[in-house]
Amino acid sequence: MSKKEIILTGDRPTGPLHLGHYVGSLRSRVELQTRCDQYVMIADLQALTDHAKESKLVRDSVLQVALDYLAVGIDPAKTVIFIQSLVPALPELTMYYLNLVTWNRLKHNPTVKQEILQKGFGESVPAGFMTYPISQAADITAFKATLVPVGEDQRPMIEQTNEVVRAFNRTYNTDVLVEAQALIPKIARLPGIDGQAKMSKSLGNAIYLSDPPDQVSKKVKKMYTDPNHLRVEDPGKVEGNPVFSYLDAFGTDLDKIQELKAHYERGGLGDSVVKKYLLEVLLEFLEPIQKRRAAYETQLEGIMDILRKGTEKANETASKTLSAVRAAMGIDY
Amino acid sequence: MSKKEIILTGDRPTGPLHLGHYVGSLRSRVELQTRCDQYVMIADLQALTDHAKESKLVRDSVLQVALDYLAVGIDPAKTVIFIQSLVPALPELTMYYLNLVTWNRLKHNPTVKQEILQKGFGESVPAGFMTYPISQAADITAFKATLVPVGEDQRPMIEQTNEVVRAFNRTYNTDVLVEAQALIPKIARLPGIDGQAKMSKSLGNAIYLSDPPDQVSKKVKKMYTDPNHLRVEDPGKVEGNPVFSYLDAFGTDLDKIQELKAHYERGGLGDSVVKKYLLEVLLEFLEPIQKRRAAYETQLEGIMDILRKGTEKANETASKTLSAVRAAMGIDY
Repeated sequence: MSKKEIILTGDRPTGPLHLGHYVGSLRSRVELQTRCDQYVMIADLQALTDHAKESKLVRDSVLQVALDYLAVGIDPAKTVIFIQSLVPALPELTMYYLNLVTWNRLKHNPTVKQEILQKGFGESVPAGFMTYPISQAADITAFKATLVPVGEDQRPMIEQTNEVVRAFNRTYNTDVLVEAQALIPKIARLPGIDGQAKMSKSLGNAIYLSDPPDQVSKKVKKMYTDPNHLRVEDPGKVEGNPVFSYLDAFGTDLDKIQELKAHYERGGLGDSVVKKYLLEVLLEFLEPIQKRRAAYETQLEGIMDILRKGTEKANETASKTLSAVRAAMGIDY
Repeated sequence: MSKKEIILTGDRPTGPLHLGHYVGSLRSRVELQTRCDQYVMIADLQALTDHAKESKLVRDSVLQVALDYLAVGIDPAKTVIFIQSLVPALPELTMYYLNLVTWNRLKHNPTVKQEILQKGFGESVPAGFMTYPISQAADITAFKATLVPVGEDQRPMIEQTNEVVRAFNRTYNTDVLVEAQALIPKIARLPGIDGQAKMSKSLGNAIYLSDPPDQVSKKVKKMYTDPNHLRVEDPGKVEGNPVFSYLDAFGTDLDKIQELKAHYERGGLGDSVVKKYLLEVLLEFLEPIQKRRAAYETQLEGIMDILRKGTEKANETASKTLSAVRAAMGIDY
């Protein structure tokens, strides 16, 4: 029997999670937790690298993200859910790894370069943001993760981690650190309600898992569809039409969806009819999630307990790795 | 009565300490410990930023440096002596501070630029080395140090720390972090035995506090003097002549030194005579230091105990600061 895979994954707590998170990662976590050792990190330390001035938002989002996790069915009995900044081994490992990476290498990380452009940092990119790939290497290696679910655009981050692993093991003549593999999801990303390729809080085009039905309804009503589908009788495009992408992602009646697509392409099916069905589908999907969320919301202290227990377990694992790292370096006083 | 000053100082453990360390810092620590709260840090974490591949040397030097401290009279009852890497609050504070400093600012630190040239890092400067000024800001602020003894060339490091302090206090609307002042020693540095401006292990021109008498004798014999003082009867130069700099630093018979200087300048005094006297002076200076060192060397476990106790005290102070920092940021879960 092959060894159980170890998964490290998580989210930057900078707001509640949305349908894009569900499709891109939450859904698979619920599935993976039954057959892997899964660590899910609420990455507040990482969130601060580009939200240093909004630390209160980060703080408040920790609980929101935890609620979203529990609401979608991430089970604290199967998954270790923890708060990154409460695991002191992670910053310490980061310090050791930073010595094994050149400053120039950090400048040339493609994911970071792209994000600097997106965030408009220009010349004033925080040093903590430039070094976050190494902090991420600390996160991944601390738990000896073998699989890290990431989007295609994050693949260079895993390469950076594995470079650190190899540099450390070579420098200290050890095998204490373990290389990780990127786990790229099949449906990479859900488009935004505005038709942009990615649903994202910062683009303001997201439907949140915690959006009440009237919010969902409003958002679905203003969804981008096929801009050339002007009259009901016109033939419409299904590809690149987020309404249909959402139906593919969340619908359960595949025959009905097939039928709607054909009708839409033929002409004669109005956007409002499809949207009405999408709204039904989404509300049906969200209902059990929001029910669980509401139940948890009445016992917030219980959630902090879950996070504390998870963080305790995370600390056990991470400090074992840290001890092994220090021993390999010979600084185990 | 004004508040007691708090001092944070220390050394990178990359070898035993030498006469230059004594003149530049150790001597004043022995004096300052009677009237200030003094923290002396064995900076192994910092040593690794440019000695990542020599972690065993760093490890072994921790004990050597501690022995040197105790031998010169740094008193663990008055001074907190601790090992940097065993204070987890320091890496964590570093992570928070890195978000408040731009990548560009780090590139333009004059001390670091100079050191990169000296160390010949070129394009492959480790990221940990570029960020060490921020790690130093963590060290200084963790203990709320008000005074940091540094050489003139290290003044920009204190400026960098104070920039972090102001940025943090402004960003989180707090006064939890305290600005520090540089304490520049009167005799900035002792020249090397080769006449170079600075005594330094890496230049191979040092007399160590732990050098046995025959080593000291050999080193004094080959000391650089006035290169134009070829014959005994020639007038010699006292200024820039390290033999006389050492007499000034370690001699106690000021009249005799004055006399020797005058004679040397007049002509008729051979280098070997002055060196013979310098050797006497140095051996007399080193004798009690080496006696104490020898006594401590018979009880190495006792020294580890001293370091453990010091580190415990350091952890108490640093984790209080860390808690206050987290509370100011609002991430005190």
